Amino acid sequence: MAKNGNGNDPAAGRRAPAGAAVLREDKTEAIRAAVFEELAAVGFARMSIEGIARRAGVGKTAVYRRWRSKLHLVLDVVSAVAAAGLPTPDTGSLRGDVRMLLEVAARALRHPMASQIIPDLLAEAARSPELATALRAALHDSQEGVAAAVVASAVARGELPQNVDTRLALDLLTGPLYWRLLVVRDELPKGYLDALAGSVAAALGAE
Amino acid sequence: MAKNGNGNDPAAGRRAPAGAAVLREDKTEAIRAAVFEELAAVGFARMSIEGIARRAGVGKTAVYRRWRSKLHLVLDVVSAVAAAGLPTPDTGSLRGDVRMLLEVAARALRHPMASQIIPDLLAEAARSPELATALRAALHDSQEGVAAAVVASAVARGELPQNVDTRLALDLLTGPLYWRLLVVRDELPKGYLDALAGSVAAALGAE
Repeated sequence: MAKNGNGNDPAAGRRAPAGAAVLREDKTEAIRAAVFEELAAVGFARMSIEGIARRAGVGKTAVYRRWRSKLHLVLDVVSAVAAAGLPTPDTGSLRGDVRMLLEVAARALRHPMASQIIPDLLAEAARSPELATALRAALHDSQEGVAAAVVASAVARGELPQNVDTRLALDLLTGPLYWRLLVVRDELPKGYLDALAGSVAAALGAE
Repeated sequence: MAKNGNGNDPAAGRRAPAGAAVLREDKTEAIRAAVFEELAAVGFARMSIEGIARRAGVGKTAVYRRWRSKLHLVLDVVSAVAAAGLPTPDTGSLRGDVRMLLEVAARALRHPMASQIIPDLLAEAARSPELATALRAALHDSQEGVAAAVVASAVARGELPQNVDTRLALDLLTGPLYWRLLVVRDELPKGYLDALAGSVAAALGAE
């Protein structure tokens, strides 16, 4: 489960409404959407509660009633992405499963918002342990279970040996694509995902 | 050769000295070192020429005499890292060469300065095409030749088939380690580099 660094509050850093006030869910959603847009437009460091409120069409108070700070707001939206999780592929073959995971990851990482927001938050995470933890949950922990399931199915089918290292498997599944799309910031050449799927299956120990 | 986005000036965005003034090389080096320290301490967005000059023990004018802006200064130091390049390993086996490349890359990426500065500059690069080009040269282009040489040696020894995709090879060599060290920001478990070297060699097509 994604943690938000806010101790015992299960609602990911959100404040309890003062008194008996009811927080309108449509405003909450508008603020959440505005956070993504502001992050992509100006980045975490330059983003302000004022700017978020303006974009969401609400007052600053509406934001502060829900989240105590910019950091808590970002932790909340990032944690929500992590909790949404990824589907576990079940194509009947390791190579097929790997191909599908790569396809889903490539689509997510190529999304203009992700390709702006993730590098920005990672830079900030180098100075904020709370954000680092939330981001790690969103990018890594949410995928670890999927990678483990794909490997376990392949072991059960006899496609992989028993002793596959799941952590290394996730690095091989995610690393090359992340490097190409978010570090080198290059297009994927035609046939790239097929070639990468074959290479990753071989790397995991498939014949 | 690393390009710096400054057109026909070979000195990576540095200004020609005004008149016949000679720029003291020790001051230039002090400023370069200060840039790395400031980048690690406060990040690109918050870094100022004032802060760099103070840290380097020089006046602001000494900085502006050499570089026209903060961006040009950073482009220069990043390009210098790219131009320094990496040694091409020659251990006599693909797995040995891959292991050595991973060792060098892991040492570079684990350096506290790299692990602060690279994510920070990547975030900025999403908004600055000039910086994106310089960073790409430093992180990717400088390594592409080394990866190609390692692959070519392995093909010559008969360890790899002729048709290895060098671009994919570099993604497999660099991606998993980058992901683990600079995205997940995790320690490398004992034996990790050995296991990764074996996996990458298999991914490239070695039996």
